[in-house]
Amino acid sequence: MANILITNDDGVYSDGLLALYDALAELGDVIVVAPDRPRSASGHSITLHKPLRMDKVRLANGETAYATNGTPSDCVSLAALDLAKDKLDLVVSGINRGPNLGYDLTYSGTVSAAMEAAVYDINSFAISVTSYDEDLDYSLAARFSKYLAEILLRNELPRSVLLNVNVPDVPIDKLAGIEVTRQGKRHYDGRVEKRTDPMGRTYYWLGGDLPVDVLADGTDVKAIAEDKISITPVHLDLTADSMLQPLKDWDITSFSPFSE
Amino acid sequence: MANILITNDDGVYSDGLLALYDALAELGDVIVVAPDRPRSASGHSITLHKPLRMDKVRLANGETAYATNGTPSDCVSLAALDLAKDKLDLVVSGINRGPNLGYDLTYSGTVSAAMEAAVYDINSFAISVTSYDEDLDYSLAARFSKYLAEILLRNELPRSVLLNVNVPDVPIDKLAGIEVTRQGKRHYDGRVEKRTDPMGRTYYWLGGDLPVDVLADGTDVKAIAEDKISITPVHLDLTADSMLQPLKDWDITSFSPFSE
Repeated sequence: MANILITNDDGVYSDGLLALYDALAELGDVIVVAPDRPRSASGHSITLHKPLRMDKVRLANGETAYATNGTPSDCVSLAALDLAKDKLDLVVSGINRGPNLGYDLTYSGTVSAAMEAAVYDINSFAISVTSYDEDLDYSLAARFSKYLAEILLRNELPRSVLLNVNVPDVPIDKLAGIEVTRQGKRHYDGRVEKRTDPMGRTYYWLGGDLPVDVLADGTDVKAIAEDKISITPVHLDLTADSMLQPLKDWDITSFSPFSE
Repeated sequence: MANILITNDDGVYSDGLLALYDALAELGDVIVVAPDRPRSASGHSITLHKPLRMDKVRLANGETAYATNGTPSDCVSLAALDLAKDKLDLVVSGINRGPNLGYDLTYSGTVSAAMEAAVYDINSFAISVTSYDEDLDYSLAARFSKYLAEILLRNELPRSVLLNVNVPDVPIDKLAGIEVTRQGKRHYDGRVEKRTDPMGRTYYWLGGDLPVDVLADGTDVKAIAEDKISITPVHLDLTADSMLQPLKDWDITSFSPFSE
């Protein structure tokens, strides 16, 4: 039987995690280690400065899970290094409520858990439904999770590579296709709102949820805009190859530490 | 005069930030927006769920700075969108105490601030000294910061590209060179320590500081091991190009939502 770790950044009691559990339980033993509370936009952070706890809790389907005070990445580490040491065949992070597209990838707690699995050389994917609706229907994403998990239990991703999956929030019969995509350039429009608190002090809200989409063909953003499931292969090597030579041309390496 | 934002993840009162300020003040107006406390391993996180504050504080050199309750990325957003709106010529994050090499990049608060600047299309670099020594000498890194800042005030990085700089902890006359590098595969060896607290409950420490280095030629890790300054061009596109075709070969796009 396959051993499948699931985690997320919406917290152990989220509906998306439950839908994922039920979909993957048909493929093997599902182990749940997830944050004890929502950890959205936690980035790929690891907890080095405080002790981590793992508490046994019960999911709404009656199954046992482990709730931690750590980040999604920590959950993967705790499972890979202790709870299910050397036994994990697959790590799946999700099903997230809300998109993880374009530049979101470097912020995303959901994706960070799959990244951490890639560091440990375990096949992994992150999966999100691209809507923040409170009553989100996870059934399409759950079915695709099972389909993709079966493929990843048969095939090996290269070292340091993971998959980032986004599923449009459409009725199953409206799904327009499945596309392998590149990461697009979607990002928030960088709004900041300045307000005054009841004591007269200034404070700020970042964000707003208006995305700026650059709908280039073949990108995750475009696929979702067309009601398709988007699958982006992601790797951990951030080197901008095209700049290696130009930097040398800028005399960056001519620095002399003794000159003023 | 150039407007240069500096920030970090060690906190506004750190020695590395002060050394950076003094080095860059010769090149233009230095604006400081930095976390009010250490934010190491905070990843590229943005704060969407709580109000952000900016408090005026005074650095040890007598200059004014802004301390925030946000992450390094938030500091860049607050400066780029409010405090120095449309005025920033360069963002520098550091000088960090401790390396940001290899896979560290996806965890690093220091690098995340430079990434956020790249999202706003502002030239930026992150700079770290590769030692955790409490009495770290920042003078070599400070001199290189000034040298690199001058170059980046004359030249434009492509959209979504930033530089990640690591400086070895060596006396200035022992510096072995400057190298433009690729991101290596350095990562922590993934240790978890299981302990029992005074109440008999289990807890865990992640990490340990033993890095696993894969010393491939041309990488940041190798350059540092050879006592060279390492400069890695980094971009925000994480697409694993080499996997785009193989995924299609795995029939990933053949999913039918109606089959069981």
